Amino acid sequence: MSLDTVLNRIDSELDTSIERLCDFLRIPSISTDPAFKADVDRAADWLVNDLQTIGITAEKRTTPGHPMVVGHVGQDLGDTVPHVLFYGHYDVQPVDPLNLWTREPFDPAIEETEHGPVIRGRGSSDDKGQLMTFVEACRAWKDVHGSLPCRITFFFEGEEESGSPSLVPFLEANKDELKADLALVCDTSMVSRGVPSISSQLRGMVKDEFTIVGPRIDLHSGHYGGPGLNPLRELSKIVASFYDDETGKVAVDGFYEGVHDVPAEQLAQWQGCGFDEADYLGSVGYTQPHGEVGYSTLEQQWARPTLEVNGLWGGYNGAGSKTVIPSEAHCKITCRLVGDMDPDALRDKIRKHVEDRLSPDAKVVWDNDLDGSPASVMNISRPEFEAARTALSAEWNREAVFAGMGGSIPVVGYFNTVLGMDSMLVGFANDDDAIHSPNEKYDVKSFHKGMRSWARILDELTK
Amino acid sequence: MSLDTVLNRIDSELDTSIERLCDFLRIPSISTDPAFKADVDRAADWLVNDLQTIGITAEKRTTPGHPMVVGHVGQDLGDTVPHVLFYGHYDVQPVDPLNLWTREPFDPAIEETEHGPVIRGRGSSDDKGQLMTFVEACRAWKDVHGSLPCRITFFFEGEEESGSPSLVPFLEANKDELKADLALVCDTSMVSRGVPSISSQLRGMVKDEFTIVGPRIDLHSGHYGGPGLNPLRELSKIVASFYDDETGKVAVDGFYEGVHDVPAEQLAQWQGCGFDEADYLGSVGYTQPHGEVGYSTLEQQWARPTLEVNGLWGGYNGAGSKTVIPSEAHCKITCRLVGDMDPDALRDKIRKHVEDRLSPDAKVVWDNDLDGSPASVMNISRPEFEAARTALSAEWNREAVFAGMGGSIPVVGYFNTVLGMDSMLVGFANDDDAIHSPNEKYDVKSFHKGMRSWARILDELTK
Repeated sequence: MSLDTVLNRIDSELDTSIERLCDFLRIPSISTDPAFKADVDRAADWLVNDLQTIGITAEKRTTPGHPMVVGHVGQDLGDTVPHVLFYGHYDVQPVDPLNLWTREPFDPAIEETEHGPVIRGRGSSDDKGQLMTFVEACRAWKDVHGSLPCRITFFFEGEEESGSPSLVPFLEANKDELKADLALVCDTSMVSRGVPSISSQLRGMVKDEFTIVGPRIDLHSGHYGGPGLNPLRELSKIVASFYDDETGKVAVDGFYEGVHDVPAEQLAQWQGCGFDEADYLGSVGYTQPHGEVGYSTLEQQWARPTLEVNGLWGGYNGAGSKTVIPSEAHCKITCRLVGDMDPDALRDKIRKHVEDRLSPDAKVVWDNDLDGSPASVMNISRPEFEAARTALSAEWNREAVFAGMGGSIPVVGYFNTVLGMDSMLVGFANDDDAIHSPNEKYDVKSFHKGMRSWARILDELTK
Repeated sequence: MSLDTVLNRIDSELDTSIERLCDFLRIPSISTDPAFKADVDRAADWLVNDLQTIGITAEKRTTPGHPMVVGHVGQDLGDTVPHVLFYGHYDVQPVDPLNLWTREPFDPAIEETEHGPVIRGRGSSDDKGQLMTFVEACRAWKDVHGSLPCRITFFFEGEEESGSPSLVPFLEANKDELKADLALVCDTSMVSRGVPSISSQLRGMVKDEFTIVGPRIDLHSGHYGGPGLNPLRELSKIVASFYDDETGKVAVDGFYEGVHDVPAEQLAQWQGCGFDEADYLGSVGYTQPHGEVGYSTLEQQWARPTLEVNGLWGGYNGAGSKTVIPSEAHCKITCRLVGDMDPDALRDKIRKHVEDRLSPDAKVVWDNDLDGSPASVMNISRPEFEAARTALSAEWNREAVFAGMGGSIPVVGYFNTVLGMDSMLVGFANDDDAIHSPNEKYDVKSFHKGMRSWARILDELTK
């Protein structure tokens, strides 16, 4: 009966929970852009204050980059109760291109859509809305019971969208404080609308950036068009050479080292997990998958590696025309890693691929400030995963699934390697949330049932 | 003796001539960018006033775009003297990337270099400095003789760097006023430092711009990396497909229709014209020509067509990383045309090439506001060409050459088709002038001997 009281409390307080989330969303905590440094800091302060209103001992901790927020509750309960760490990130992606937003990104509001009401605004899904499902579940629990049912450490990062440069040093320096039985992470999506999902694996990531340098200065194409090497053409040639258009594979030598095919049993389970391929593709304007030939859309998304160009630029991009052969052309790439792919080895292979293909008189300059992280596989045999599956299945009225995940959450790897701690990822985002894009939103249903889901999971974990 | 008096006057007044040019260069008359509209207008006013101080009847004429400047002198001399039209343009290229300039682009000054003093600033060479060689030659002639030796129409355009949208309508509407025996144009360079050059042919131009559209919105590469079509990859594939890397040729079907090989006799003349290939390539950091295999550097520059990418952009180009699959990728191109290549037909071939190579789910959107013009061959059998060759050879102490030219000066074609008037192009720019680039300059020697050259040409034409 006490769980029902908590769930009823969540229902009756939904509007004030949304109001609190909107308050949080109004802070433009874009971590990758130094212009927003003070706003990132303000978002950390907001979280500290919010946790304190639930009776959680919380502090902002400085780092060389953006601050961490750490909170504790239930230490007095001793070792007989579980101890979980809840992780989320309070920073958000940049908002460009701003002209494609239908409202100000940091002026959130409820909007009606064909799938019901949504909370529209940058960070509503990734990750402020998601992390608040857990915080608000704790608030309801505390309101009803006066205390929480287990030891909980709250750990919120402000650099997830900008490579987490301070994360590992902070984990190293605060091992004893942060180590718990299990990390809970709410930064993932459901395989399909209404299908509760626990992540069984995540892809890793390698980031890189390079500049192709041609002539010493920008040239006039009337004087040098013909004899002149054009870095934009050179860059296009190199990017095109990354791919084999016949097979859809990445054509970098050794790229697939460490990649394993998905076992047939797991593949069968994925195919039955309720993933709606037509909706996933059609909602963004695709009529077919464009990845490796011979692999299903789900495999392409969850279990196959990628080399993606995230930015290309060079020459003139203003109004009208300019007959320039530019001196430089620029390219940002990221790879998604699976299986045992080694981030550092992969970066070396890609760089060799580029350098081997440079024309005479072309040079390449690399950005050496970008990071990488390997793929992760979850330890789904732990009893907490079964508890979560029971809780989620009850809340969503259909069996929860163990699903792959195409994104990368490096912290999961670091929890494992630095703290020796497994993670369990449960998230309520939908594929159409437009995270990292204009018009990001979070379904009110995700927020509402997300809070209820965490209350049920806390209940199952402490039964 | 009277020519010597004019030449002496040019020598003694050099400093004040440079001062007047610098005054002109301080006006940022960037025609392609609407933000500079008032400055373009101000440059036209400056020219009108400058011509009036030499006793030339001059006016600013409005057009739907930037104004024209038209001036007349010597109508009272009747039909027994030659009538020439002098053409130049008073607009300039944009200055980006501004950070590569060693001084403010519109704060000109004399700087010492290994090749002697130069006038540094945007427009110093292209075309304000060049057009002022003629205007200042007229000023010296007038100062010495009290009048000019022939009828001269001055015609200055403010849209040369932005596609000349008003040019043809203006020529059509003012045929009778603008028609002369021959047009003189000072907007070209010398084949090599110190080698006086008369242009025998110019390349034409086709401009185009397109956008590749992939997904309906920007996507997260964790959610869609793999199955998702990336327009940046698509654009790179298409740009790379424009070229055959083995032969250096453009691989667009039918691209070379209308291209003729240079006759052996003309080629021999070019090879002996003093073009310094090592300096031409080495001054911008090239160790070899990068155009079509089997053609000399001069042929690649003067007599072969090109398809050049002038701008590429899409995705994220800010600080750090963004795991985005963008919705759009953009590309600006220009082609240089030779022989009988047809601009409209060529544009159609390129568009078909792109459209034939689009992946499913990719679309292309074309900019239909960009123009084109065919290549031009000069009528060098006219006696004025021999007169100019005599004058230039005397001034530069070496025989002047008839040289090809890699650039495009569409007005030459329009003088022919609209006014039935031939053109003679004499210019004093050097290949290292960095026109259209940061740190544009004009050698003081070019300016000084340019003025003297025009005085000698006027003298030869009216002997």
